Amino acid sequence: MKLSELGEFGLISKIRKSFSRPSPRMLLGIGDDAAALRIAPSRTLLATTDMLLEGVHFDLALTDPYSLGWKSAAVNISDIAAMGGIPRFCLISLGIPAAFSVDDMTEFYRGFDTLARIHGCLIAGGDTCASRKDLVVSITVLGESEKNALLPRSGARPGDRIFVTGTLGDSAAGLALLRKRSRKGSRSGRCSGNAGSGRYGAGEGRLIRKHLRPEPRVAEGRSLARARCASSLIDVSDGLSSDLLHICEESGVGAEIYADAIPLSADLLQNSRQIATTPRDHALSGGEDYELLFTVPERKLKAFRSLGLEASEIGVIRRKKGAVLVLTDGRRTELPPKGYDHFRRR
Amino acid sequence: MKLSELGEFGLISKIRKSFSRPSPRMLLGIGDDAAALRIAPSRTLLATTDMLLEGVHFDLALTDPYSLGWKSAAVNISDIAAMGGIPRFCLISLGIPAAFSVDDMTEFYRGFDTLARIHGCLIAGGDTCASRKDLVVSITVLGESEKNALLPRSGARPGDRIFVTGTLGDSAAGLALLRKRSRKGSRSGRCSGNAGSGRYGAGEGRLIRKHLRPEPRVAEGRSLARARCASSLIDVSDGLSSDLLHICEESGVGAEIYADAIPLSADLLQNSRQIATTPRDHALSGGEDYELLFTVPERKLKAFRSLGLEASEIGVIRRKKGAVLVLTDGRRTELPPKGYDHFRRR
Repeated sequence: MKLSELGEFGLISKIRKSFSRPSPRMLLGIGDDAAALRIAPSRTLLATTDMLLEGVHFDLALTDPYSLGWKSAAVNISDIAAMGGIPRFCLISLGIPAAFSVDDMTEFYRGFDTLARIHGCLIAGGDTCASRKDLVVSITVLGESEKNALLPRSGARPGDRIFVTGTLGDSAAGLALLRKRSRKGSRSGRCSGNAGSGRYGAGEGRLIRKHLRPEPRVAEGRSLARARCASSLIDVSDGLSSDLLHICEESGVGAEIYADAIPLSADLLQNSRQIATTPRDHALSGGEDYELLFTVPERKLKAFRSLGLEASEIGVIRRKKGAVLVLTDGRRTELPPKGYDHFRRR
Repeated sequence: MKLSELGEFGLISKIRKSFSRPSPRMLLGIGDDAAALRIAPSRTLLATTDMLLEGVHFDLALTDPYSLGWKSAAVNISDIAAMGGIPRFCLISLGIPAAFSVDDMTEFYRGFDTLARIHGCLIAGGDTCASRKDLVVSITVLGESEKNALLPRSGARPGDRIFVTGTLGDSAAGLALLRKRSRKGSRSGRCSGNAGSGRYGAGEGRLIRKHLRPEPRVAEGRSLARARCASSLIDVSDGLSSDLLHICEESGVGAEIYADAIPLSADLLQNSRQIATTPRDHALSGGEDYELLFTVPERKLKAFRSLGLEASEIGVIRRKKGAVLVLTDGRRTELPPKGYDHFRRR
């Protein structure tokens, strides 16, 4: 069905029926001027927003609407994870071009809702409007955090160890694989496939899935916040080098990263021949991994290790500003912010 | 200066320096993964979001960046007013095309901040990214409301009187004037003028100003919420007929509107010859007035009148569904939802 047949208010009513869940935390959800929500009285409110634009953040020839919905939820929930918070509510705003059908919209919401529900995040409202050409997605996620348990970017101090969860570079490799297949394949226009489905080998499928359907590290962020053992925290969205420099700038410090310690997945190493960039470069500047990058003061290392978090120690915070990559042979090279900058000429 | 020279992080840093204000209510503002905010423990959290797309919601040939920023804040704060709430924080997400300069961005933020500050609303964060072609604006406003003082759309009951603040149709008339001048004038491309400035007569200027720089009715919404005398409330964004029908649908009732009682400004009546549509049609279906439309139960009329709110009584809620316009001679005509629907063919 076309959106022009259903109309704006028909669409809102359909979304409301399918994706609005009653909750004592939500006094008013979809369908009023504003949502009315309950935040626990002793908690701090967290609020984050991220925009995803067609042709800039995503390509409808490389992703399906379900995965796009999933990822739109994931990248925002990841920002709550990066504060050590609990995601609670989300608002979904969409600018929808004529080419997007009611089924596409429903798939988008289904993907969004599936990921959001995993993290207990309720759809509380949003906005839907027509767009001239490109699909426009803007998400706001609201969360909670215990007072005095915030994990900002600004708390890193010299001597703190640097850790990262999971592996890095997989998402960028997944995107490179998708692009390569898209150029080779005869397909044109819209992607309808499942993320990481049969057309790919298992390892390739997992890399692609990490790109299309990232999994925000909410449990890990909560664990760090409750144990109060991290001094700073950020999620890896722009790329390790850029996001590390965000921590350094906000904290007024520098950092040393050990090249050999950067965690790379077996899938990435096995598929590296297919991808132009080296695995380490993918890890340093690829972005969109949505792993957590954080620092732990030496005196808290024991408490941190007792958490049993799957994280790799990759470096140390230094007094001297800037970030340095230490290679296997001891050579040192400056780590420029190679991650994504939306406005710089490339 | 071009955005490509300043870069994404240079822009964020500039915005942060100019528009971030310290406040005990804001533990973390612009520059972290999420904002960390304080909502009073006894309050309900309100959250609303609205998207404004170039070519759909605004035309850069008819508005200047300052007015666009102002209006982007106003339309969102108006949704908090329409709940009887207090606006507190806002998040600004922008997709910025190459044609938009650093000065344009600064003007946008200045306009936004000016209106937001009038209402005590702090800029707490957002997202900035490149857009292929169109300027994309997505705003989220968070507010507070006393518990049990929410004013949703759904509380209207048969017999309740219908009121509206201010006058209706001025914004639509202002837009019609702007379009007419733009067609006649030799100007092409970007508008740099001041809203309602010298090129227009005083009345015309006021109509144009109502379109470009609407003033959300926060004080009136607060007054209604504190006095607990309104049974339902909405802001007039889609047009009187559409927004009245939103109240009717959510409340499961119908309505009668007296054509003669619809408040029209002297400016609108004086300039009606210049505009193709009649003043009343502008008022019924024009939209973007951001006045408050609300219902008051008969037993609360005395309390309501004692508030001294500038509002006109324009009709009454009926049991029978649908909305009817009662003309001067007593004839009755159905009031269809003539307001804006983003997806319907026009």
